[in-house]
Amino acid sequence: MDQPSLISEKFLVRDLNDGQAVDAVFVVRDHSRRQKRNGEAFLKLRLGDVTGTVEAVVWDAVEDIAACCATGSIVRVAGRFSMDAKYGAGLTVRTARTAAEGEYDPADLIDGPPVECGQMESDLRSLVATVQSPDLRRLLESFFAEDAKVWARWRDAPAAKHYHQAYRHGLLEHCLSVAQGVSAMAATFPGIDRDVAVTGALLHDLGKIEAYAGEGAAIEMTDLGKLAGEIPLGYYMVRRRIEDIAGFPEDVAQAVLHIILSHHGQLEHGSPVTPCTREATLVHMIDNLGGRLGSFDRIEKSLGAGERWSGYDRALSGSAYFAKREEDRTAA
Amino acid sequence: MDQPSLISEKFLVRDLNDGQAVDAVFVVRDHSRRQKRNGEAFLKLRLGDVTGTVEAVVWDAVEDIAACCATGSIVRVAGRFSMDAKYGAGLTVRTARTAAEGEYDPADLIDGPPVECGQMESDLRSLVATVQSPDLRRLLESFFAEDAKVWARWRDAPAAKHYHQAYRHGLLEHCLSVAQGVSAMAATFPGIDRDVAVTGALLHDLGKIEAYAGEGAAIEMTDLGKLAGEIPLGYYMVRRRIEDIAGFPEDVAQAVLHIILSHHGQLEHGSPVTPCTREATLVHMIDNLGGRLGSFDRIEKSLGAGERWSGYDRALSGSAYFAKREEDRTAA
Amino acid sequence: MDQPSLISEKFLVRDLNDGQAVDAVFVVRDHSRRQKRNGEAFLKLRLGDVTGTVEAVVWDAVEDIAACCATGSIVRVAGRFSMDAKYGAGLTVRTARTAAEGEYDPADLIDGPPVECGQMESDLRSLVATVQSPDLRRLLESFFAEDAKVWARWRDAPAAKHYHQAYRHGLLEHCLSVAQGVSAMAATFPGIDRDVAVTGALLHDLGKIEAYAGEGAAIEMTDLGKLAGEIPLGYYMVRRRIEDIAGFPEDVAQAVLHIILSHHGQLEHGSPVTPCTREATLVHMIDNLGGRLGSFDRIEKSLGAGERWSGYDRALSGSAYFAKREEDRTAA
Amino acid sequence: MDQPSLISEKFLVRDLNDGQAVDAVFVVRDHSRRQKRNGEAFLKLRLGDVTGTVEAVVWDAVEDIAACCATGSIVRVAGRFSMDAKYGAGLTVRTARTAAEGEYDPADLIDGPPVECGQMESDLRSLVATVQSPDLRRLLESFFAEDAKVWARWRDAPAAKHYHQAYRHGLLEHCLSVAQGVSAMAATFPGIDRDVAVTGALLHDLGKIEAYAGEGAAIEMTDLGKLAGEIPLGYYMVRRRIEDIAGFPEDVAQAVLHIILSHHGQLEHGSPVTPCTREATLVHMIDNLGGRLGSFDRIEKSLGAGERWSGYDRALSGSAYFAKREEDRTAA
Amino acid sequence: MDQPSLISEKFLVRDLNDGQAVDAVFVVRDHSRRQKRNGEAFLKLRLGDVTGTVEAVVWDAVEDIAACCATGSIVRVAGRFSMDAKYGAGLTVRTARTAAEGEYDPADLIDGPPVECGQMESDLRSLVATVQSPDLRRLLESFFAEDAKVWARWRDAPAAKHYHQAYRHGLLEHCLSVAQGVSAMAATFPGIDRDVAVTGALLHDLGKIEAYAGEGAAIEMTDLGKLAGEIPLGYYMVRRRIEDIAGFPEDVAQAVLHIILSHHGQLEHGSPVTPCTREATLVHMIDNLGGRLGSFDRIEKSLGAGERWSGYDRALSGSAYFAKREEDRTAA
Amino acid sequence: MDQPSLISEKFLVRDLNDGQAVDAVFVVRDHSRRQKRNGEAFLKLRLGDVTGTVEAVVWDAVEDIAACCATGSIVRVAGRFSMDAKYGAGLTVRTARTAAEGEYDPADLIDGPPVECGQMESDLRSLVATVQSPDLRRLLESFFAEDAKVWARWRDAPAAKHYHQAYRHGLLEHCLSVAQGVSAMAATFPGIDRDVAVTGALLHDLGKIEAYAGEGAAIEMTDLGKLAGEIPLGYYMVRRRIEDIAGFPEDVAQAVLHIILSHHGQLEHGSPVTPCTREATLVHMIDNLGGRLGSFDRIEKSLGAGERWSGYDRALSGSAYFAKREEDRTAA
Repeated sequence: MDQPSLISEKFLVRDLNDGQAVDAVFVVRDHSRRQKRNGEAFLKLRLGDVTGTVEAVVWDAVEDIAACCATGSIVRVAGRFSMDAKYGAGLTVRTARTAAEGEYDPADLIDGPPVECGQMESDLRSLVATVQSPDLRRLLESFFAEDAKVWARWRDAPAAKHYHQAYRHGLLEHCLSVAQGVSAMAATFPGIDRDVAVTGALLHDLGKIEAYAGEGAAIEMTDLGKLAGEIPLGYYMVRRRIEDIAGFPEDVAQAVLHIILSHHGQLEHGSPVTPCTREATLVHMIDNLGGRLGSFDRIEKSLGAGERWSGYDRALSGSAYFAKREEDRTAA
Repeated sequence: MDQPSLISEKFLVRDLNDGQAVDAVFVVRDHSRRQKRNGEAFLKLRLGDVTGTVEAVVWDAVEDIAACCATGSIVRVAGRFSMDAKYGAGLTVRTARTAAEGEYDPADLIDGPPVECGQMESDLRSLVATVQSPDLRRLLESFFAEDAKVWARWRDAPAAKHYHQAYRHGLLEHCLSVAQGVSAMAATFPGIDRDVAVTGALLHDLGKIEAYAGEGAAIEMTDLGKLAGEIPLGYYMVRRRIEDIAGFPEDVAQAVLHIILSHHGQLEHGSPVTPCTREATLVHMIDNLGGRLGSFDRIEKSLGAGERWSGYDRALSGSAYFAKREEDRTAA
Repeated sequence: MDQPSLISEKFLVRDLNDGQAVDAVFVVRDHSRRQKRNGEAFLKLRLGDVTGTVEAVVWDAVEDIAACCATGSIVRVAGRFSMDAKYGAGLTVRTARTAAEGEYDPADLIDGPPVECGQMESDLRSLVATVQSPDLRRLLESFFAEDAKVWARWRDAPAAKHYHQAYRHGLLEHCLSVAQGVSAMAATFPGIDRDVAVTGALLHDLGKIEAYAGEGAAIEMTDLGKLAGEIPLGYYMVRRRIEDIAGFPEDVAQAVLHIILSHHGQLEHGSPVTPCTREATLVHMIDNLGGRLGSFDRIEKSLGAGERWSGYDRALSGSAYFAKREEDRTAA
Repeated sequence: MDQPSLISEKFLVRDLNDGQAVDAVFVVRDHSRRQKRNGEAFLKLRLGDVTGTVEAVVWDAVEDIAACCATGSIVRVAGRFSMDAKYGAGLTVRTARTAAEGEYDPADLIDGPPVECGQMESDLRSLVATVQSPDLRRLLESFFAEDAKVWARWRDAPAAKHYHQAYRHGLLEHCLSVAQGVSAMAATFPGIDRDVAVTGALLHDLGKIEAYAGEGAAIEMTDLGKLAGEIPLGYYMVRRRIEDIAGFPEDVAQAVLHIILSHHGQLEHGSPVTPCTREATLVHMIDNLGGRLGSFDRIEKSLGAGERWSGYDRALSGSAYFAKREEDRTAA
Repeated sequence: MDQPSLISEKFLVRDLNDGQAVDAVFVVRDHSRRQKRNGEAFLKLRLGDVTGTVEAVVWDAVEDIAACCATGSIVRVAGRFSMDAKYGAGLTVRTARTAAEGEYDPADLIDGPPVECGQMESDLRSLVATVQSPDLRRLLESFFAEDAKVWARWRDAPAAKHYHQAYRHGLLEHCLSVAQGVSAMAATFPGIDRDVAVTGALLHDLGKIEAYAGEGAAIEMTDLGKLAGEIPLGYYMVRRRIEDIAGFPEDVAQAVLHIILSHHGQLEHGSPVTPCTREATLVHMIDNLGGRLGSFDRIEKSLGAGERWSGYDRALSGSAYFAKREEDRTAA
Repeated sequence: MDQPSLISEKFLVRDLNDGQAVDAVFVVRDHSRRQKRNGEAFLKLRLGDVTGTVEAVVWDAVEDIAACCATGSIVRVAGRFSMDAKYGAGLTVRTARTAAEGEYDPADLIDGPPVECGQMESDLRSLVATVQSPDLRRLLESFFAEDAKVWARWRDAPAAKHYHQAYRHGLLEHCLSVAQGVSAMAATFPGIDRDVAVTGALLHDLGKIEAYAGEGAAIEMTDLGKLAGEIPLGYYMVRRRIEDIAGFPEDVAQAVLHIILSHHGQLEHGSPVTPCTREATLVHMIDNLGGRLGSFDRIEKSLGAGERWSGYDRALSGSAYFAKREEDRTAA
């Protein structure tokens, strides 16, 4: 059962059932060596794919399996899954080895944007190019040009620790879609300064690259992030940069900085001021919408086959319901 | 000064200054006959244009002036405006007569949508035509077809009593723009059932035609509106109609009705349930955005020349700031 | 110890102590077959009586015991109870068999109203008969007549999933006592339209029969209940019915429907409008009182011998204190 | 017009119309002498009846009219009423003199309980007599016996400054009806210690006699009331009294004192603890209900002929609606 | 009556009574020329002293009086004060002329700190000198050295627009007393880094010098203040300055900046982060205490003779009570 | 390893690591005898020191170990510590015996004030002696004199169940430091009646000696505490005492009692009135500050070596950050 034969049926974490024999490929999210009360070693793993995470335990062949289960490894695992009201759900691993490339579809294992990074980068540059104001374009390029100091960090950062787009390139995906939405709305509703709004949308979460550290599942707030907050950090970075651009118009600077400071919409959500321009209102609300729809994406992936309702979700302050699931659509 | 000569300079309510001599055309918003403490009659008027409203008083020629000042009349008025910390602002009317057609631009007097009703009606029908589901299209046509019973009422209704689009055709303007925005967002973000979302957006405020009565400045909540609320009224109308459409799929019905019930977004705003589908989340948030941007439009019109900040506005829970005003744009 | 001899002492769930040998009759609330990590089967049960619920596990004679432990069965169980900070409280079952009729008092096992259903039904019909308005009586009879379509469903439904009267006939018990309380208060305080108030009290929770499904411990919200809410569902049912009664006075209809829509008292509790009539205020507050007193009943049953204080209870937003317990009263 | 002939039509404050000639009897609620800017004296009066209050001004015969217009006087007034958006509503008094007894119905002028004080006193004593516990009866009699020190003060006090029963004997009316309601509910719902609940209901507002001073329209909070609060004051009075009753059972004392401390229901309403017994829950909720229904009574009296809706009322956190008004009932 | 004789009795605004003849010295807070409805000019003034403000009107000798009543002038005024429920309180001015120096005590007219500015400046420099850390002392001196760019602006600024220390040097008074209180508390409670806490206390309100403009009664928020908020402005100024001090320790910088960002204590009060160090907690709470005690000072000055209670005050979210007033103390 | 040799390295609960062999002295906080499912006995212990608490289990030598592990015993324990995501952290005890006196530092085991009780008592008496008013001094001495009835109880009581100073003498430490802080602030800010404020500060928590029972870890609210609340209990005790002091001035009594009633600062925190004097504001805020700083002390002790951030703490409504820990200071 552990030769690199193709796995006939795909096992996803969300579909595991009590008592089921498992033969599947997972990514190792965490691992630790423990000692039984009798002194023998055993192994604890956290295995995952895009649909969720499962705790696993290895009682036998501990040394061999430990050797191929560093965090981040992709392993083919055989064993049995069981659920228990007291002990929780868990996978007892019988065998595990490094998975061969042809054995799995990477898209099943590591979550990421639905669109490839290169495509998003090119969409971003196209959008920046539509900004008419040379000052704003220069400001945007000072952050997003390929040789800009923060560019690579921003491009690779996740958008959040958990709620939405919590994966590599998630911040790029989130800011780009918010900016595209803002651009579309500026065409539908009158009176909006599109250049200011699009610039604010692209820069609104810049402080996150100082407020968060790490990548993917291991992302954490930095000391700086906790002590100062992502909004003041972003405000400082953008204002500092603007002061270095000679002749940047004062009123445009204030309009963009106001978007950054107010984009959480309410004081109790951490914005020191509330949106008082059309552009700040627009960025705040499309950012909010994008975050919520991102939460629907995350939740939908975690539901088991046939499930329509999620449990209570903090990001939504409620449950999510999917009248038709992606699987129905694929099936249809 | 009161022959039908052209008025050289346009007087708008928002631009009146203390002590100013006035010769201008206004619409009569309200009028009442009063008695001085000595028993003589005088006249109180509320005069307005799109930029605001001013109280006026007529001490002389009361009978003649009363004859041409029914509510809704368009009158040319001469007099003097004064402001007083104690007595408030007021216009003392010396002469008034029915305005001749060439003397004024109707767009200065009666607020309305920036786009003509016919155009919006045609945009609405185009949008309905893009709905693929025959059931949903039939539902929409049962309300919006030219010969449908509620069509004319819905087309002419204002969107609100005060906050935004509080004028004839305002409801059409609001629902159409929300539905267009929803349609655009359904193209930007994945996983949205566009037909359901657009239908919900078009029908979300249907209950308002039973919850409100009157038009323009005189719009009031009905007894029914206060006792039942616009959301249950709209829910009843749409569910009742759906039950008359043979074979309307149950799940589609629930999806549309859920949008109507949840579109205020939170229980404390009067929705008995909160949005738990992508489509309901989307309609709620674009409705909210449309209302707020509509408030910016209303507020901008009411500001005097050169003013950049409004006072505290309940609809925004804050002040509005206009870095550049429409007037600047026109001037430029 | 497992022959059908009479159990000398009554064991109730609330009185179980760590280490205690148990020989008692319980109802099976849930059961599931599991697999030990070594592959052998074992049985998990949820056993209960009116005072609470206990988790149980069966390691031996699994097949025999499984045969008599379908959900809903009444079984005599012998074993030992133990409490553990880590593993929680649990009953290890040694033997179990179907209980014989004489071995137990059904009132100890299955919670229910303190008054028999037939008595409540007769009280309901007496109360309906006191309603003077023929229209309102006709409306009530259209729901509560013995041959009415919803009658049996309403009579058997529980009042809630957990908080109060969460048992068969609980809805009848709750609505009847609220209506009786409303009727008494209409005699104490002036200005109340008793017919309208009593009718509203009897119908206020009608939507629950569509919003909930199942019975007793297994009651769950339906999709319809989650997507539309019990209040709009009840509003629709009653308004639809009223529209079928020829000549039903419009103002009386609005008065009754307003009670249904506002009976949660506040927007944040799910009412789309707040009570603005004496009758709606009265029904809301006696409904609230009835629910809270019902929570005291539920909590009192769950306390162990000698306990005077409950823990924090969500329904009360606090703890309950019983200066004298039912047991003291019985003892006295 | 000012001879003591019978006034053909009753003028009530709520029915005054702009421009109306007035010949009516009012009670003087307040009066003050003022000086015109030219130095001449004039008189300002606040005139009222049970339906409201009107500001009045006397320009002529100032000395004569002042002589009969002490606060509390009942005067027959002739003049003219006018309403003005700027100057408010006011009555210009031409003549005024002390009203003769046959000229008016006292019930139109001075608000009070619908039941006579003697009747309420007798109902109170009957209710006290039904309390079985000798300790509680002794406690009640120590406050309510005819020769008890606080009896007369409590009997005459209003229940509130404004919201409900804000008139002489209002506190007696309120506490009696709450206690009667509590007694009725103790018969409907199981598990309530009626003696404790009725005693708590009668004593719950005792602190008000120290927290408020004055009578009727002029009632004000005392320094003590503002610095300590009516609840701690009442708690102190009752606990102090209990400590003087030899052998008063400790648990009964705690049960009654808990009702007093918790009767506002929530910390944010000024109760230092929340209700955690059935009896405290019951008194809190019937007190709340009684207060709200009392507000409906107050509001109904203040509405003009034909009015169905009140404006926003702070006591109700909303508007009140009267489908049928008392006048309709009288008319019918 | 208008020769420069000494005024025998001091008239303060708070002590004015209806009908009183006035001969007193006031500062002119505002003035405007108006036109009567008949076209004649009159003058409106706002006159004040440290105890309050009174509206005044000049009907005669308008030109002469206007000449000496520029805003900020100190004038001796004779006339009569009257109060009226409808028209409010007002002073009718008969004569007015520039006051001579000996005629008044400046401390009665212009509010200010109880301690002289020079004394506070010297106390500030003493406090700065106690800071042991050379980095922090250098930072403080970069703002507060006599030749520092912001020094004069900071020294002269008021602490608030209205609530407390709303006068010249008020910011210096407020920050100094908060820093002194913080220093005292650092000696009472263990574990506090006094240098960091005192530095944070002195700099916490620095952003106000960009967020507010103007002085005394005329102070207003700037566009920058409204769009960015005083906290981000102060954060930017201090962080920018720190970055220019070579070798400033990163952890000390974060500790001071965290105090500035968190000093409003809660997100809903405009701090983007909440205090999470002892030093930030201390500065927040002593700042809060200082503000509240400052409000008591302001309120006490505005009360009339013998008044003990203020009305509801927004800064206190309640009323203030003065068991003994300053006047009693002086008298004693 | 279990002879009374000196333990080379100190083991504190906060520093335990997974898999570590333990040989350390702890205090027994709780112990219970349990039965394995096979009927054999085992022992569960809760062991602690000032840095925290750890669960422990004894499988062998149960009888011997039980004999020396009564709650409150100080024992030397050898065994192994393990952490497990499922089973939690726990110490498996191999041997345990009563610790000899020289083996441990009591300060590591039992938390207490940083200052000795005798010193605090003497500081208290010095502070009381500074109170000038003979009435207030008499009041304080009636509670705090060495022979006063409540003195010993108050001196030994903890300040809280958990949040701060939850140890013997904690109430004395807390009230003394609040009163000292209040005294210092009365010297910094003007207008404060120091005698009243200091007296209020010393007495503000008096009700806690009736509201809480037990000591140290085992402290619980009494029935009286839950039913009446600590504030009314303290109010009653102090008012009752004042009434026994002949000639105690009424206004001073109200001032002190107002401090006690309002010291939680807001209704929602259990104060029936909010602070409306300078003295009550001051005591409330320094009490609040003292409680928060006490929480920092508690949290700092519980952090492991090198930890800078705590988790979310309910008392702070956030996390605590320690830029420098006590250990750093000691090391430096």
